[in-house]
Amino acid sequence: MEILNVIQGRRSIRRYRPDPVSVDQLQALVSEAGIWAPSAGNTQTWRFAVITNSLLLHKIKLVSPGLLGSPPALIVICQDLEEAQLKGGSLGPQFLAIADAAMAAQNIMLYAHALGLGTCVIASFHREALQAILGLPRSIAPIFIVSVGYPECTPRTPIRKKDVIWFNEYK
Amino acid sequence: MEILNVIQGRRSIRRYRPDPVSVDQLQALVSEAGIWAPSAGNTQTWRFAVITNSLLLHKIKLVSPGLLGSPPALIVICQDLEEAQLKGGSLGPQFLAIADAAMAAQNIMLYAHALGLGTCVIASFHREALQAILGLPRSIAPIFIVSVGYPECTPRTPIRKKDVIWFNEYK
Repeated sequence: MEILNVIQGRRSIRRYRPDPVSVDQLQALVSEAGIWAPSAGNTQTWRFAVITNSLLLHKIKLVSPGLLGSPPALIVICQDLEEAQLKGGSLGPQFLAIADAAMAAQNIMLYAHALGLGTCVIASFHREALQAILGLPRSIAPIFIVSVGYPECTPRTPIRKKDVIWFNEYK
Repeated sequence: MEILNVIQGRRSIRRYRPDPVSVDQLQALVSEAGIWAPSAGNTQTWRFAVITNSLLLHKIKLVSPGLLGSPPALIVICQDLEEAQLKGGSLGPQFLAIADAAMAAQNIMLYAHALGLGTCVIASFHREALQAILGLPRSIAPIFIVSVGYPECTPRTPIRKKDVIWFNEYK
C-alpha cells in the first residue's frame, strides 16, 4: 500500500470484531514498526507490553475510560522514566518520553492499517492502576494504550482543518 | 514504497545538500501527511509554520542547539496551547499537545522519506526566542522543529533494542 494511502486511510477504531490478532502480527507491529521510530538521542527508553490475556484485557478496561469497544489486543507503550531522566534530565520524562512513545504509536498504527487491522491510541486511563495490573516496576510508566483488532466498520473520515499551515512569519 | 520500507528506511538526517525543497512538496508534507495524524478528541490544535526564508533559517539556527547541518527548510510544529487547555484541561498543553505534534511529525518524516527527502525531529531549541523570531502569538507554542532537505549521505542504521517487548504481565 502506498504511504499516503496508509497515512490518510488510517482511522481511529472504537468497535472491533471479536476475532483474535495473531501473536506474530502483534509482535511485528512493535518489532517491525514501533521500535523504528526515532527516539531522543537514540535512547530507546520505550517498553511495549502486548496484552492478549482476556482477564488482563478486562481489568485494563475497568481503569481506562478512553478504551472503547472490546479490542482483542492492546499494546501498552511504556517508558522507563528513570532511564529517561538519566539520559535527558527533567525534559526526559516530561517531554521526550511522551514524544518518543507517540512516534512509536504512530508507526504501529500505520503498519497495523496496512495489515488490515484497526487501532486507536488512548491516553485516558489510570496510570497507577494499569501499572499494578501489568505488574510493572515503579520506574516503568504506561504512556499510551493502543487498541488493536479487526474493525467492525470503517468510520467516516473526520474533516481536516486546512487553515493551520503558513509559510515563514505568522500570517 | 511499501510501508515497512518507509518506516525502517527513514533515518534522522543532520547533513543536507543546499538544494531547495519545492514549496509544493513542503505544503504536501503537512497537508497530505502531518494533519492526517490522529489528535486527542480530534481537536487538531496543531499549527505548522513552514520556513524557507534564509534569514529566518539563520536566526532559528542561532537559538536551536539541536538543529544540525544547514537544512533548506524547516517545519515548526506548534500547538495552540490555549485551545489545547480549553479542550483537554491541564492534560491538553502538558501531554496531549506533545503527543499530537509528535504523531504529526512522524507522518511528515515518513512521507518525506518516501519522497526522497531527509528529516530530523528536534526538541532542543529556545521556545520563547523561536516564538519571537516567527512572530507567533503568545498562545502558539513551537513544540518540535522538523528539518527538511535532501540528505548529503545516508547515515548507518542505529541498532534497535530488541528486549523491550513482552506479552501480558511484565517478564
